[in-house]
Amino acid sequence: MEIFHAAEFNGNMVFLDADESAHCVRVLRHRTGDEITVVDGKGTMARCRLTDDSPKGASAEILERFPLWGGHPYSLTMAVCPVKNNDRYEWFVEKATEVGVDVIVPVIGERSERRVFKTDRSKKIALSAMKQSLKAKLPEVEEPVSVKDFIASRKERGGLKLICYCFEGETERVSVEEALKGLPEGSDLTIMIGPEGDFSPEEARLAVESGFLPVHLGPSRLRTETAAVTAATAVYLHFI
Amino acid sequence: MEIFHAAEFNGNMVFLDADESAHCVRVLRHRTGDEITVVDGKGTMARCRLTDDSPKGASAEILERFPLWGGHPYSLTMAVCPVKNNDRYEWFVEKATEVGVDVIVPVIGERSERRVFKTDRSKKIALSAMKQSLKAKLPEVEEPVSVKDFIASRKERGGLKLICYCFEGETERVSVEEALKGLPEGSDLTIMIGPEGDFSPEEARLAVESGFLPVHLGPSRLRTETAAVTAATAVYLHFI
Repeated sequence: MEIFHAAEFNGNMVFLDADESAHCVRVLRHRTGDEITVVDGKGTMARCRLTDDSPKGASAEILERFPLWGGHPYSLTMAVCPVKNNDRYEWFVEKATEVGVDVIVPVIGERSERRVFKTDRSKKIALSAMKQSLKAKLPEVEEPVSVKDFIASRKERGGLKLICYCFEGETERVSVEEALKGLPEGSDLTIMIGPEGDFSPEEARLAVESGFLPVHLGPSRLRTETAAVTAATAVYLHFI
Repeated sequence: MEIFHAAEFNGNMVFLDADESAHCVRVLRHRTGDEITVVDGKGTMARCRLTDDSPKGASAEILERFPLWGGHPYSLTMAVCPVKNNDRYEWFVEKATEVGVDVIVPVIGERSERRVFKTDRSKKIALSAMKQSLKAKLPEVEEPVSVKDFIASRKERGGLKLICYCFEGETERVSVEEALKGLPEGSDLTIMIGPEGDFSPEEARLAVESGFLPVHLGPSRLRTETAAVTAATAVYLHFI
């Protein structure tokens, strides 16, 4: 099953952009009258019939809509520090999208080695992982922000807020499994994952003051991107 | 913390091979008398003192041994079909090693597109992931075997045996979380993950006859390597 993405459904019609049109018409050789599947990136899938097979701007008529298609029963924001090797971050974006994530925020910590992050490639990877894993909602990849600004922006936000903090002995931590216990469907979660050198004690203190619960991901020493995928997977598995 | 690997501890001495010696002496510039950390790949870490800093064959005296260092409280065999893109399989090997796995078996299914698999690179990746994640036990990467032969080889083996099977409606399946419920420490687990085209009905039937429990990994459509990491992570999280 192949799905296409159109950022806006326009009444009863969908218009594919140049990339999607070329893929639909040139690569997959769909012609006017064919049935195709289109998602809007906001949660709705539509069964459509191609009405114009132009490879530069194809359009289709909506036959049936399926809201909340391929969705997950929680809302998850992953705030993850970029890592030295960008491929590894992009791998996290792909895997988190496959299991289920809503917002990805690259956060820059005081100890981050990588302090610049371009979101373009991650956005493309999220789009392709959404299509590949048959979901209708495209995870947002936000512009990078400092750890402190991110914490401040989440201060008033409810839901379960977790900070994965490595330093042992300094902060009381529970396991992520313990933290998720009993969490009902529909919950809003925010999980922060630090850089290779961990969060600074100041960042950790601020997070705790702003309602973040310090958690650990078990005894294994995980790379940043592995920790991020492990945490997202813990949430996903909790709800299956 | 940097750790070195020596396949054999020889009484009170360890001998590093050419690669490890060069890394220890040329790259990290350790000299005779320095304290280094060496693992045997079988579960033991040793604090050692370098007695010969030859970059082609360094040796060290064992000061203290730590058995079961960085180990996990279960034994896990992951039998996973190779995927078209080898990088993706190697990524699974790295991530499974980071969270904790004992044996990786590339299994070739009736519907596998990739029917040949070289284990060399995966072995190297497992070694480097073991060192990076501070573990003393090197996961074994076995030679490829057919799905049917693998199932036959496991017929008499006890423990919990799971087959992740995608076809809906054909087989009664429980979630992996359900299957792991109540599993005590020390358990022996085997998990099979099929190729892109899934196991054949015949393979699934054979597996069930041989004591494999069909499980699902939740509603998301996961790539083969994502399914494998998700299953290994489910086991890891169960025991933290």
